Amino acid sequence: MCVVILAHEGFPDRAKTAVGVLRYGDDEVVGVLDRTRAGERVRDHVPDVADAPIVGGIDEITEPIDALVVGIAPIGGGFDETWRPDVGGALERGADVIAGLHYFLADDEEFARLADEHGVEIRDLRRPPENLSVSDGRASEVNADVILTVGTDCSAGKMTTTFELAEAARERGVDAGVVPTGQTGIAIEDYGIAVDRVVSDFAAGAVERMVEERAGEFDVLFVEGQGAIAHPAYSGVTTSILHGAMPDRLVLCHAAGRDAVHGYEHVPIPPPGEYAALYESLADPVAPAEVVAGALNTQRLDDDAAGEAVEAYADALDAPATDPVRFDAAELLPAVLGET
Amino acid sequence: MCVVILAHEGFPDRAKTAVGVLRYGDDEVVGVLDRTRAGERVRDHVPDVADAPIVGGIDEITEPIDALVVGIAPIGGGFDETWRPDVGGALERGADVIAGLHYFLADDEEFARLADEHGVEIRDLRRPPENLSVSDGRASEVNADVILTVGTDCSAGKMTTTFELAEAARERGVDAGVVPTGQTGIAIEDYGIAVDRVVSDFAAGAVERMVEERAGEFDVLFVEGQGAIAHPAYSGVTTSILHGAMPDRLVLCHAAGRDAVHGYEHVPIPPPGEYAALYESLADPVAPAEVVAGALNTQRLDDDAAGEAVEAYADALDAPATDPVRFDAAELLPAVLGET
Repeated sequence: MCVVILAHEGFPDRAKTAVGVLRYGDDEVVGVLDRTRAGERVRDHVPDVADAPIVGGIDEITEPIDALVVGIAPIGGGFDETWRPDVGGALERGADVIAGLHYFLADDEEFARLADEHGVEIRDLRRPPENLSVSDGRASEVNADVILTVGTDCSAGKMTTTFELAEAARERGVDAGVVPTGQTGIAIEDYGIAVDRVVSDFAAGAVERMVEERAGEFDVLFVEGQGAIAHPAYSGVTTSILHGAMPDRLVLCHAAGRDAVHGYEHVPIPPPGEYAALYESLADPVAPAEVVAGALNTQRLDDDAAGEAVEAYADALDAPATDPVRFDAAELLPAVLGET
Repeated sequence: MCVVILAHEGFPDRAKTAVGVLRYGDDEVVGVLDRTRAGERVRDHVPDVADAPIVGGIDEITEPIDALVVGIAPIGGGFDETWRPDVGGALERGADVIAGLHYFLADDEEFARLADEHGVEIRDLRRPPENLSVSDGRASEVNADVILTVGTDCSAGKMTTTFELAEAARERGVDAGVVPTGQTGIAIEDYGIAVDRVVSDFAAGAVERMVEERAGEFDVLFVEGQGAIAHPAYSGVTTSILHGAMPDRLVLCHAAGRDAVHGYEHVPIPPPGEYAALYESLADPVAPAEVVAGALNTQRLDDDAAGEAVEAYADALDAPATDPVRFDAAELLPAVLGET
């Protein structure tokens, strides 16, 4: 499938979905829309993915495209009205539109009409299925081995670590699948439920359902975690995933140097060792799981400092650790797959 | 207000809302509908509340009524079609209908039409407000003293303990209010948000908003907890309330003798002392709070056994404990109000 990714004023640092789709998706990206970077190239900013031009708007894309992916989400998940010509333009060209906003584009009158007229589809990745229900507390009974990425904060690398570990496992011949729980993972996998958008009562049930479904298809599942259990706003989502997935093992993701919750600077982040123990004590009464490895996001450090930070992180966790993007996720596999 | 409570086939044991409204509500209950107990009296089953007749259907109520309250919720929160004549009959008589189901009665075509024709209102207590948002992590800054009831399971007495403590505090002259988080509490207080029905991302934010609102009205707030942090299905709701409310103190509610999660008998309940420590360790990084008292539901025990169970529970928690219904909630007040 040929896709264009909308990332106005956000590429690459505030366009997590755009970068995720570029890095882990199967689709051919023929262009990125960012009006502040028109004329530049993807490779100027994200060196390790297939290159593509960055342009100012959908009209500058000359190739036929199958879909426009909204690759950016403002805080609160609203729709930015300046994107309207691009979304409308894509629909008019006969392309599907894929978005992970809280604001559902299929419910927008103009977009719904255009999609109808041009026989194309609007897929709101964050819209939960209609028939969710409470968890049965049975996910631990699946045959697959289940690994959950957990974090010390939002944007600490859980989604990235999940996909890096799955790719590394597949390269070793392991039949590994991903259970995406957020819009970027869903856009990459074309499967999943945005757990943060599910009614609280059904959040664990939504995760359980996905684990049970995907356990029928894969030997090993990497479940994408969300938020953090000591996050003042999102800890409920985190806990629902932990208890809904009933994982066998946990991988703790942390952003190097971050010592307060992002956007909640008055809430300090506990030290990694304590944080790991907190996850384990919360998992224990429902389905015991240990933190067996650490993933450290060292994006803001140079190579030397990154190596030292990883070493200190491994010591704090008393478990193997790496930065799965800068270094090699495969280093963690023996611990993550329970071989050690 | 004169109300009738619908509790078919459930009064009193499976009609938590009915009993809550009878025990703690301000309304005059002129009758309870339970077709399996028609001809009996409320007092035959719940001795400590104002008496009322139990009848088979709304047609047997001869007094004028202001509202019908749906006082029972089947698992899953669905609507039982056998209730249709009673709900429709109430609307036709010019009574409002108040319900806390997941199925919203105001969205039912027949009921919506009847309400419209007769100029009455259908209030679905579980429908969340439209404009919720993520928590700011600021509830600890309110001027009121905030006490949260937490539990070792669902149906362990959190709602009851919340209202008993608030009543006992008011009797001592304390300006105490309740923050209801579930349909029964909302029916009693005519205020609140059913947190289990809120989108996960906004669950802590919903609690924070209520605490901030009510802190402007009262000196002391008793926040009604939901679920349990080691519950396989509802722990996300529990965690959202714990971190959204940022309470000063916790009261741990437990049903005497229960050692596995109700409906999830394969999941054991940790011992009370461990459970209290788990709540404290989860509260700690966001807003520290200690379990300062215990509430034990001894409904299934005789008086002697109840006394012994309360004593053992207090020992396990190393804190004062009582059964606030059988004995006296006031015993807990010094600890709960932070005076000791």
